[in-house]
Amino acid sequence: MMTRAQLHQQNLNKIFYPDSVAIVGANKVAGTVPCDILMNILKADFNGIVFPVSPKEKFIAGVKAYKYVVDIQDEVDLAILVFPSSVCHMALEQCGQKGIKSAIIISAGFKEVGNDGVVLENQLKEIAARYDMSFIGPNCLGVINTDPRSKINASFARRMPDEGSIAFLSQSGALCTAVLDYAYAKHIGFSKFISFGNKADISEIDLLYYLKDDPKTKVILMYLEEVTDGLALMEAAEKIITENRKPILILKAGRTSAGASAAASHTGSLAGSDEICDAAFKQAGIIRCENIEEMFNKAIAFAYQPIPKNNRVAIITNAGGPGVLTTDAVVRQGLQLAKLSDETTAVLKKNLPKTANTNNPVDVIGDARADRYNIAMSAAFKDDNVDGVFVILTPQSMTDIDLIAREVAKVSSHYDKPVFTSFMGEADVAVGIDVLQRNKIPHYILPESMAIAFSTVYNFSQISDHRAFNPIDIEETARDKANRILDSAISAGQKYLTENEATQILKFYELPVIENALAQSADEAVSLAVRFGFPIVMKVMSKDIIHKFDVGGVVLNIQSEQEARNAYMKIVDNVRRKLPSAKIDGVLVRKMIPTGEEVILGAKRDPSFGSVVMFGLGGIFVEVFKDVAFRIPPIGESVAKSMVESIKGYPLLSGARGNNPRDIAGIVQCIRRLSQLVTDCSQIRELDINPLIVLDEGKGVFIADAKIML
Amino acid sequence: MMTRAQLHQQNLNKIFYPDSVAIVGANKVAGTVPCDILMNILKADFNGIVFPVSPKEKFIAGVKAYKYVVDIQDEVDLAILVFPSSVCHMALEQCGQKGIKSAIIISAGFKEVGNDGVVLENQLKEIAARYDMSFIGPNCLGVINTDPRSKINASFARRMPDEGSIAFLSQSGALCTAVLDYAYAKHIGFSKFISFGNKADISEIDLLYYLKDDPKTKVILMYLEEVTDGLALMEAAEKIITENRKPILILKAGRTSAGASAAASHTGSLAGSDEICDAAFKQAGIIRCENIEEMFNKAIAFAYQPIPKNNRVAIITNAGGPGVLTTDAVVRQGLQLAKLSDETTAVLKKNLPKTANTNNPVDVIGDARADRYNIAMSAAFKDDNVDGVFVILTPQSMTDIDLIAREVAKVSSHYDKPVFTSFMGEADVAVGIDVLQRNKIPHYILPESMAIAFSTVYNFSQISDHRAFNPIDIEETARDKANRILDSAISAGQKYLTENEATQILKFYELPVIENALAQSADEAVSLAVRFGFPIVMKVMSKDIIHKFDVGGVVLNIQSEQEARNAYMKIVDNVRRKLPSAKIDGVLVRKMIPTGEEVILGAKRDPSFGSVVMFGLGGIFVEVFKDVAFRIPPIGESVAKSMVESIKGYPLLSGARGNNPRDIAGIVQCIRRLSQLVTDCSQIRELDINPLIVLDEGKGVFIADAKIML
Repeated sequence: MMTRAQLHQQNLNKIFYPDSVAIVGANKVAGTVPCDILMNILKADFNGIVFPVSPKEKFIAGVKAYKYVVDIQDEVDLAILVFPSSVCHMALEQCGQKGIKSAIIISAGFKEVGNDGVVLENQLKEIAARYDMSFIGPNCLGVINTDPRSKINASFARRMPDEGSIAFLSQSGALCTAVLDYAYAKHIGFSKFISFGNKADISEIDLLYYLKDDPKTKVILMYLEEVTDGLALMEAAEKIITENRKPILILKAGRTSAGASAAASHTGSLAGSDEICDAAFKQAGIIRCENIEEMFNKAIAFAYQPIPKNNRVAIITNAGGPGVLTTDAVVRQGLQLAKLSDETTAVLKKNLPKTANTNNPVDVIGDARADRYNIAMSAAFKDDNVDGVFVILTPQSMTDIDLIAREVAKVSSHYDKPVFTSFMGEADVAVGIDVLQRNKIPHYILPESMAIAFSTVYNFSQISDHRAFNPIDIEETARDKANRILDSAISAGQKYLTENEATQILKFYELPVIENALAQSADEAVSLAVRFGFPIVMKVMSKDIIHKFDVGGVVLNIQSEQEARNAYMKIVDNVRRKLPSAKIDGVLVRKMIPTGEEVILGAKRDPSFGSVVMFGLGGIFVEVFKDVAFRIPPIGESVAKSMVESIKGYPLLSGARGNNPRDIAGIVQCIRRLSQLVTDCSQIRELDINPLIVLDEGKGVFIADAKIML
Repeated sequence: MMTRAQLHQQNLNKIFYPDSVAIVGANKVAGTVPCDILMNILKADFNGIVFPVSPKEKFIAGVKAYKYVVDIQDEVDLAILVFPSSVCHMALEQCGQKGIKSAIIISAGFKEVGNDGVVLENQLKEIAARYDMSFIGPNCLGVINTDPRSKINASFARRMPDEGSIAFLSQSGALCTAVLDYAYAKHIGFSKFISFGNKADISEIDLLYYLKDDPKTKVILMYLEEVTDGLALMEAAEKIITENRKPILILKAGRTSAGASAAASHTGSLAGSDEICDAAFKQAGIIRCENIEEMFNKAIAFAYQPIPKNNRVAIITNAGGPGVLTTDAVVRQGLQLAKLSDETTAVLKKNLPKTANTNNPVDVIGDARADRYNIAMSAAFKDDNVDGVFVILTPQSMTDIDLIAREVAKVSSHYDKPVFTSFMGEADVAVGIDVLQRNKIPHYILPESMAIAFSTVYNFSQISDHRAFNPIDIEETARDKANRILDSAISAGQKYLTENEATQILKFYELPVIENALAQSADEAVSLAVRFGFPIVMKVMSKDIIHKFDVGGVVLNIQSEQEARNAYMKIVDNVRRKLPSAKIDGVLVRKMIPTGEEVILGAKRDPSFGSVVMFGLGGIFVEVFKDVAFRIPPIGESVAKSMVESIKGYPLLSGARGNNPRDIAGIVQCIRRLSQLVTDCSQIRELDINPLIVLDEGKGVFIADAKIML
């Protein structure tokens, strides 16, 4: 049998490529949503048949109307529902009866208005499930497909966008209107444009999987207010990125808690912690954007231009100051300023005026016209040391702005290297910018944005055998044994595990707990010492003794069985003599660990992502500097390694200040085992390993203390 | 006698308000700089007389021309030189002979082209000095004054900007063309617009002082590639900010070293370290910007709107998603989301549709027209809990964009609170944005920029008894005594001071050096101990002894004269017995310091700012986390305090993790004394106090080790 998710994929095809559409709830009142949608479909030259369904009208805009959807004789692929929320379920029921499998529910007044709306929304879900239907919405702007094979504007947006290779998905319908307007002005086209609203049935995950294999889509953009199923989002993203090499850019609102609560009142949903969301997106290869402008700045770089082979940039400018600003931006974004070849420099020297700067940034000087830009660009494109070209222009009195823009489009079309432009100013340069945008040359108001876009594309091209999730091999029974302990602790009403229970679970997952036990006799002390392995530490345990060292109650660095026996006897003897009144509970035997760097590992549950694991340096580094990293488990070696390397204090582990490098491989192993543990055992609410003691490279790591909360 | 700086102020008045102008080197060839400048002045309706000076022409554009400037009978206030650099000095000489006191030298080909240019530039300076003349340039675009009293466009810019209250100064002429174009499109006006080029005579500092008292200028913007005299810049900025309450926004290029080297090849000047520049600007109250857009985003907030009384913001939007994004931005910028009064909420509930959100962010819902915006804005402006209003608009199908823009302008004009807007999109919203810009309502493409601009204005309003520099009272002779030691060390060819010399100098400046000295006898040890004060530490000094503790060569915590005598004898006795062959150099006597937090103080010379002082936590915090702060000396108490508080590790000093608060007042005193020392003694190339041991609050700080490099 087909799962709902599989069904959605099948039905989504009829949402984007229907042969016939019913507008259920259409009317003749221009300026209202039902009428606007019908007109939008008719205006956009839809490649199929439209059936208005209206209880009152016989025809609308010259098109025959039907009273009920069941009255339509022909087959209907897609229903667009624009009835008030209170009667929507009846209309959907009829669509089901008619055998329509796909719907877009535009109507608002569902989950977003509170409890009454939730009831109505659940009715829609129930009907869809019953008829094997799939729907987008409710509470959305609709869907647009620019593909000439369908060409449908099933939305009440003001305009139909151009065809393009960018897909845009949005949880907010209103934002869609701003995006369409923004994109229209910049001649940015779309493959699919989807407002998914309350995502009651078809979710953003379903849409991502649909776009994964959509040949018209090269780049996927999404505006999201809440991550409902973080793991599914990450998995989908990973597949799309690694299998299809399509970048995913997400603008996630609700960064701050006030923003999240505004988001909550808006969509009736709770946002997870933003820091975790950041880490999860990065782990999955998702490019997180701060605003619409940043999103499109990056999207057009992906959509319009070839991927650069490396990150060496040549700058061509007609003004020194902007050249400096661009150089700053290039370096700050981790790109390289290309070292031009001798040949290139020679060509430039020969063909540019004497005062021109023939090094990178190449300054063609203020009175440069299109011919000089042509010379400099051609030379830069031909240079094997150059992977991409940045063209800067300021509108000086001699500057033939539109000709230079045309030259950029013409010259760059001959080479398989990206070109990025910044024509600085606004009024005079507008004509040039327009030429660039029409010719799909990425243009940026700021040199900084140009450098950011280039480095985003370059960094994306470097993602190779990316694998967000990767379980680790643990003895098969470990999971069952751990779950048994956890379940019985929960049954017993425990809020956290005892030390002994925690130690057992950590050991099942082969985590290096430093074991200890109380010995009541010298024989017992010796056998524990043998079990734990030398060197050993012994300490008297007694509620009556505060300063164990002062009464001779501690022996360090015990190396053999004989020494262990002696140590036990000596401790008991010392205490008896110095504090005869003290009641001795026993002698604690523990493996002795050399001092090392102290780090923290942790995990907690997250409403969006299930679990999250944490790593940081211990003590003040966590508390004062907040120097920690998060990942979503289960993680593989490279992700765990990147986690360790990402903290600011990493040099302390890798061997800064003349110290020995620490056992980073040991930390990585621990993180992976811990990440598997919390993946397997969702009963664990929080887990804290603090500290994990990290010895020198190859010498291991040891858990000195661990707490598991339920 | 007048200083050159005073003379410049007088002569600058004739640069901006000349009654008569000579264009020296004018010609008839349209499209060339000399002709463009003449035409620009004529076209802009200059309120004075223009005299073209041309070796070849009898008249230009209908205006009588003169062969030489000395041929002009009338008085000439201002000369604009556009001759090639090779003959510029001859023209300037003639201007001097004619008695012209003010000049703008447009011509390029001076310092920026290398050595030959430097010679020519020096000739200009020599001539100006000889005739008490002042000039702007060379190598610049010129000067514009929009004040109707003068109305002069003495530049070859493409267009004359509108009148406004923003002054713009730029080291790069080409950037000016981009700025003028950018501002024109956004209806941003200027008071003065100055391209100052190589600043061979009149510097940016002179211009700042001129603009300080210019009644037409409210906000000062500057693009700078090199800070030549950082201290003078800071002083000027401080005066303008505190005395005239005019904000100064600087776009300083050359952030990265590659950028700086591009800057160096561009203007023949060396940029200082960017981190220091950042700190210095902040210290002086200067607002540093990253790019032109950010600069104008902030400038219009200052120029157009009243200063908010507090930072509580009300958001009005017709779309939930953008409301969330704006809330995020507000919180992230440290602003508060205003809590609307009950009265406001009641008004909104009564007058807005039921589905509207009447809490902040106020959502007037997608079908809102101007009337609903009016209701929400009026209520927000009237609310005492609101200090500023952010108006967001997305272009939905019912949105009457231009009417809403007009409503914003109208309503806000009745209240003394700032309003900021973001009409999201580009094409459809353009008509509304144009209305806003013409009405001097700050508009921003991104909600984020809106929040940044608001918080910049608010933070600026909080600068009160700001004082960048503040010397400390040190005994008058200290400076002389320190200088004597430093000078004699330099004469002796020393690269750094001996420990004894360094200690002496630090003591002159009352810095808490832990003193120590070698005792050769028990009597001497006792008298040193008395001099330093108990408790005391003694250590044997001998090249033959490595482990002093092991041979009984160290005694800690000596509390009295008797204990001191005993300790000395015991140390000598121990060493004699255990290592009879060791040659004893003496016993080191030192005040004993309890352990405390270790911090670092330092100072070094900086090419732009003279000196710079540094503070940070010791050890790994400096080396790995780079957790340090810089300031330009001499600094007062509040600046020194802000320096200590600005490091990330500050909680470690203020009493985090249940520790006692440390002696921060002691650190502040040390920083101030150190800052005075390096101000007084420019022979000090570098100074390192590492560590300074900081005890608990009120217990003092102590210098454990210090190095002074020459």
